[in-house]
Amino acid sequence: MTQMQAAREGIITPAMRRVAEREGLPAETIRAGVAAGTIVIPANPAHGGLDPTGIGKGLRTKINANIGTSSHYPDPQAELAKLRVALEAGADTVMDLSTGGDLDLSRRLIVRASPAPVGTVPIYQAAVEALARHGSIVAMTADEMFEVIERQAADGVDFMTVHCGVTLSTIERLRHSGRITDIVSRGGSFLTGWMLYHGRENPLYAEYDRLLEIAARHDVVLSLGDGLRPGCLADATDRAQVAELLVLGELVERARERGVQVMVEGPGHVPLNQVTTNVRLEKSLCREAPFYVLGPLVTDVAAGYDHIAAAIGGAVAAAAGADFLCYVTPAEHLGLPTLEDVREGVIAARIAAHAADVAKGVPGAAEWDREMARARKALDWERQLELALDPERARRRRAERNPPGTRECSMCGEFCAMALVGRFLGRPQGAC
Amino acid sequence: MTQMQAAREGIITPAMRRVAEREGLPAETIRAGVAAGTIVIPANPAHGGLDPTGIGKGLRTKINANIGTSSHYPDPQAELAKLRVALEAGADTVMDLSTGGDLDLSRRLIVRASPAPVGTVPIYQAAVEALARHGSIVAMTADEMFEVIERQAADGVDFMTVHCGVTLSTIERLRHSGRITDIVSRGGSFLTGWMLYHGRENPLYAEYDRLLEIAARHDVVLSLGDGLRPGCLADATDRAQVAELLVLGELVERARERGVQVMVEGPGHVPLNQVTTNVRLEKSLCREAPFYVLGPLVTDVAAGYDHIAAAIGGAVAAAAGADFLCYVTPAEHLGLPTLEDVREGVIAARIAAHAADVAKGVPGAAEWDREMARARKALDWERQLELALDPERARRRRAERNPPGTRECSMCGEFCAMALVGRFLGRPQGAC
Repeated sequence: MTQMQAAREGIITPAMRRVAEREGLPAETIRAGVAAGTIVIPANPAHGGLDPTGIGKGLRTKINANIGTSSHYPDPQAELAKLRVALEAGADTVMDLSTGGDLDLSRRLIVRASPAPVGTVPIYQAAVEALARHGSIVAMTADEMFEVIERQAADGVDFMTVHCGVTLSTIERLRHSGRITDIVSRGGSFLTGWMLYHGRENPLYAEYDRLLEIAARHDVVLSLGDGLRPGCLADATDRAQVAELLVLGELVERARERGVQVMVEGPGHVPLNQVTTNVRLEKSLCREAPFYVLGPLVTDVAAGYDHIAAAIGGAVAAAAGADFLCYVTPAEHLGLPTLEDVREGVIAARIAAHAADVAKGVPGAAEWDREMARARKALDWERQLELALDPERARRRRAERNPPGTRECSMCGEFCAMALVGRFLGRPQGAC
Repeated sequence: MTQMQAAREGIITPAMRRVAEREGLPAETIRAGVAAGTIVIPANPAHGGLDPTGIGKGLRTKINANIGTSSHYPDPQAELAKLRVALEAGADTVMDLSTGGDLDLSRRLIVRASPAPVGTVPIYQAAVEALARHGSIVAMTADEMFEVIERQAADGVDFMTVHCGVTLSTIERLRHSGRITDIVSRGGSFLTGWMLYHGRENPLYAEYDRLLEIAARHDVVLSLGDGLRPGCLADATDRAQVAELLVLGELVERARERGVQVMVEGPGHVPLNQVTTNVRLEKSLCREAPFYVLGPLVTDVAAGYDHIAAAIGGAVAAAAGADFLCYVTPAEHLGLPTLEDVREGVIAARIAAHAADVAKGVPGAAEWDREMARARKALDWERQLELALDPERARRRRAERNPPGTRECSMCGEFCAMALVGRFLGRPQGAC
């Protein structure tokens, strides 16, 4: 039974109970959300050592960190190090997007090492194997695609991006869309190439029931990929993108009918004034399915700082109802991220998610800020550093720029407003 | 004559002409905005070598970088280095907030070295001098406050933060507001201390006409400071803050009557769902006076990364109509910023400002992103690096993570969607 099937039969599974505990919510709330499809719990029973996490309506906004080898950097050990850094920095899930070296090995190592849910994009491995086996990506067969999906599910992958909405019809819309960047999704580009080469429909769409059968059997959460997501601001919210979203909405319903947990992926590159519209559109067209956004980046020109462009878009998206933010690192658009990029990416996404959680009233979110405010007012440095989103960084920066034992910081020194005002107003002061 | 007085007489000054040229707008548009008070041009005639910049409605969102000594770091040369870094990184203005060492010297050096408008908070110097002269901040006299303002204006300071809205009445509201952090504005805290000690009204409010007279004579833009700005999310948009804003709105009108250019400062720490409200409220209560926000920070817990928390708030604020963003550096809440902090702070604020400019349709803003999108589609790396907001950083990061001469980047390698798709769709490809 999938979590969704159990929820519909009124069963509160251990995974639901754990999610409830982590969120500080009643288990029944989680069960009802999973039954309705507004919450997903990516928890493949074959993923040993998993600590389940919920994604969706009413829950804390979650963060995903993409890791994985590429042909230039095929070493799985480097990606295991990124896994550790991502989890330490507070990522809720990781996706293994490996395309270089031994893909089965790197995935199995990552699943084994990760207590957090692990996602993949199986079409990457299918493409890499097709290139090796047949000499070209487009030579892959539909059976090979499904075989990889099955293999990854059996390995314990908790959620999978499947670009089922890239269809002959949506590609036709794309042709006439006047886009600048056409397709920027790797999975979307492989499938588009395949369809145009063979003149056949996308197998992940044409044989969607076959996909649902595998997902149901392993309780893999399907993450319906946005293969036609905009790759620049100018392409955002166009007919190609929305045509794909219409298809994804239909596929959400079919998944739910089959008892398969499902979420929907979203852009990408979106002007700030279109971010909320994109979230509302997904929630409406996809019947409140959890929305997983990549960024979105609110400008195309921030290469080297795309984690900041994504934090802006992600915060606004999550405040409007997006449930799950894929991090973007400072290396985006430039190269494969380093360990430090991974850390920075996770932290930036957590800032966005937390700002949104305060804005949308997730229980407990505002209390963290209130605690910090009290520690600031009291000039209680130890408590401020403990409460910082990244205590290690805050501690190091404070130490670097302040003599030990100073009560104020070196920004204002003896002219610290916090220190001055309490006395004037006759307020009780902690450390002052 | 101030820029505003000239504008009202139908005169297009050289400063207005230069602002028009930099914005790509008709000079008459700038003149009309200055006459109406929706645009300010901080351009003190005593500031030799100034290249005028406009701030306000319809113009590109501007960025300010705070620099200045503190008692722990009194060396003015270090602040001159920050000035250079801030301007190189793209700051539109700087504020000298020095409180350590020889304040007249550091201000004069900064004004002389800066082609960008320079702002100050004169009450800082008044407080520092009072402490040296009388042994306490509250012992300063009203005459001493105005003498410092006059001295700084004569030195060529282009805009000044003056906390005129911290009045006996607004402080009374603050007392009953149940705030966690009371006052976090240094200027606000000095004046509050002064008023409570002497039991007298704030001289900057009580003798506002005296202030206007100095501002008119030197054509200094008054930046009406928010001494009661919230210092944490929980304190945002409370009665104390809004009471002060009501006073500032009245003072905007009095400045305009006198022909003095004026803008209004805003928070601070604001939950994401209250940012737009804060901007709309200022625009309404202060009759479309340019709005200068500090951040706002959308969470209190991001010490070490407050430039990111500020970029989120600043982007949303500017998209809603804020005109001028004060940068926040990664050192905020921890200590005085380093050179690298200054750079990071300016860049983060520029990302926010540019994202907002695209969203609010500032002429030319979206075209930059479109150019970048075209360069990406063409895999034209040289052009991508040129177009990056920080070309030097983008170039270095690309070089570090990619072998020279590679067409794709090491993120996707041979599986680059950009490279694959053009061929499938029969699109013309640049570098491919």
